[in-house]
Amino acid sequence: MKHIAILGSTGSIGTQTLDVLAHSPELYKVEGLAGGHNLPLLLEQIKQFKPKKVSVATKSLADELKLHVSAQTSVFYGDEGLMEIAAGTDADYVVTALVGSQGLRPTLAAIEAGKDIGLANKETLVSAGHLVTELVKKRGVKLLPIDSEHSAIFQCLNGESIQDINKIILTASGGSFRDRTREQLKGVTVEQALQHPNWSMGAKITIDSATMVNKGLEVIEAHWLFGLPYSQIEVLIHPESIIHSCVEFVDNSIIAQLGNPDMRVPIQYALTYPQRLSTPSKPLNLAQIGKLNFREMDYVRFPCLQMAFDSGRAGGTATTVYNAANEVAVARFLKGAIDFLQIEWTIDSVLNQHEVVASPNLEEIMAADTWARAAAEK
Amino acid sequence: MKHIAILGSTGSIGTQTLDVLAHSPELYKVEGLAGGHNLPLLLEQIKQFKPKKVSVATKSLADELKLHVSAQTSVFYGDEGLMEIAAGTDADYVVTALVGSQGLRPTLAAIEAGKDIGLANKETLVSAGHLVTELVKKRGVKLLPIDSEHSAIFQCLNGESIQDINKIILTASGGSFRDRTREQLKGVTVEQALQHPNWSMGAKITIDSATMVNKGLEVIEAHWLFGLPYSQIEVLIHPESIIHSCVEFVDNSIIAQLGNPDMRVPIQYALTYPQRLSTPSKPLNLAQIGKLNFREMDYVRFPCLQMAFDSGRAGGTATTVYNAANEVAVARFLKGAIDFLQIEWTIDSVLNQHEVVASPNLEEIMAADTWARAAAEK
Repeated sequence: MKHIAILGSTGSIGTQTLDVLAHSPELYKVEGLAGGHNLPLLLEQIKQFKPKKVSVATKSLADELKLHVSAQTSVFYGDEGLMEIAAGTDADYVVTALVGSQGLRPTLAAIEAGKDIGLANKETLVSAGHLVTELVKKRGVKLLPIDSEHSAIFQCLNGESIQDINKIILTASGGSFRDRTREQLKGVTVEQALQHPNWSMGAKITIDSATMVNKGLEVIEAHWLFGLPYSQIEVLIHPESIIHSCVEFVDNSIIAQLGNPDMRVPIQYALTYPQRLSTPSKPLNLAQIGKLNFREMDYVRFPCLQMAFDSGRAGGTATTVYNAANEVAVARFLKGAIDFLQIEWTIDSVLNQHEVVASPNLEEIMAADTWARAAAEK
Repeated sequence: MKHIAILGSTGSIGTQTLDVLAHSPELYKVEGLAGGHNLPLLLEQIKQFKPKKVSVATKSLADELKLHVSAQTSVFYGDEGLMEIAAGTDADYVVTALVGSQGLRPTLAAIEAGKDIGLANKETLVSAGHLVTELVKKRGVKLLPIDSEHSAIFQCLNGESIQDINKIILTASGGSFRDRTREQLKGVTVEQALQHPNWSMGAKITIDSATMVNKGLEVIEAHWLFGLPYSQIEVLIHPESIIHSCVEFVDNSIIAQLGNPDMRVPIQYALTYPQRLSTPSKPLNLAQIGKLNFREMDYVRFPCLQMAFDSGRAGGTATTVYNAANEVAVARFLKGAIDFLQIEWTIDSVLNQHEVVASPNLEEIMAADTWARAAAEK
């Protein structure tokens, strides 16, 4: 039986993770849940899974929550609460499904505490890939990808050797504005940007899909997860999101992972690897789908992806800044403070102002992150 | 260094196997070659690879060959010659690339002699799958698939467990008459039948692709190779032959193997497994290809595939007879003795006359084979 803690239990990945656990209750015990502001949903989750420790965003939310839970459940809040759920429970496995770089410190704490990680928070590796992967090695824990693309690659690498890889190919649907020219991106609304063609996801990642920043973050994540140089990472547009990603080996054989878009499959695989269990997902029927389309990535149409490769190659704090500037820009776009195209201008401008620190420690990463956020607000 | 013998060295798979060996000469030593009637080609191969033993189809060919080779190369012929190359050399690995059920006895002899097998002769498993797989187990040798579909499945199963399979999906291009109705099959010529849309192969397998018998043989081969019931084997039409086959697991995740059609990739994989080496094949460019198409198998349009499933489920000598009747019918079609559609009528009629022997021994298999050939000639 796996003992599980979830950071971000009320978000899209968090709720789907609990779905997966509920599908095989004999295999899992939930030890801790960190939610955000959605008290009613967190309360439901507490009733169903009876974790010993829970955490919410603020003290006032914690105070309210305490009125509704039994004495068997301890309530924490804020950054300290996150750290408690990450590292202070009896869990041997932590699913990190927070949004953005707030996931970094708790993830490091969980690894330090010797827990295996199911990683859905790609910003952690983007902000501080070298620190995370070093600590994973040092503590001998497993870092298992939950992102569908990285899970696909991880599955394709089963029984294979990293030395035999030619390249990995991350597929990209193209997001909600796939078929618009750059000219047609002027004045698009938040509502339009939130219509992803294939996946139903949280708001931030849906906007990141439309700007192709999400694929950029995935490229950087893949670099750290699989220890590959950027020259061995490629992006291919595949509108249907059926091939979730693939690996080309030195013999020119390609292994791909396919399925209907359903995050419960990669979430469960990260929990049961190397075994597989049934899922409530819908089987893929290729004959019914009829055709799969592919086209080359257009780096002029999607400059944020080029910036990701450039930041990744620059290394050090460059990817931290890429991510932090994007987080602020997306939040401002969602609030209506800036236009869609200003997201990429913001990232570009903040990256241009940044002086990269090579091999940064955690303080330097946090400083770069803070600086980039301030610069992006301007 | 692997010591190799090849049964069928002058055929399509044989010559491509030698191509692969020549690509990494430091890894392989050729110990034996069994060719058929093509003396000039066999002579070239002998010059290049210097095998200690070679074999040809007939005594007169052997006598002629002896005039041209040095005393370092012993020359054999006929069935005994095949047995000598299969089991009587210093090879530790035998590639069985003979066409048809003549491959059965030498393959059994090679296994009995403790040699690993690179299996390109699917008729061996179709004729006597239970005998071959039993002997493989008993002698503890490896049976590695060379057929592109089975190699694909074998690659997809890397690091996976047979218990976790939902089903395997063999892809079928549809062959040279894919887009013709049954009505339009009347009166097609041998020349038309030999135009395979994707693969350049030997004549027999190209006709088998047009009748879908080839896929039928592959279904039966897969049943034996992977130990799966027929209910877990599916066929999907995929005109481009880019996805060479795939596996659906219990979590509804599908792993697929892709590549340009080039037999040198599966041939080499069967030799280097679990490692991979570079090949002279052309890398696959999905963006350039643009789209992959899929459609449901039509068992009314392709009745020979239904007969394969039915024979497989009937078991015993039924698949031996399916294969033998087909071999005779194809030979007669190639000679112009019967029409294209008479191939399937022949198989159907011979199967209908046959009384299945359950769990046959080798003699009973040979008897069924002989009987079916005689019946098919009528």
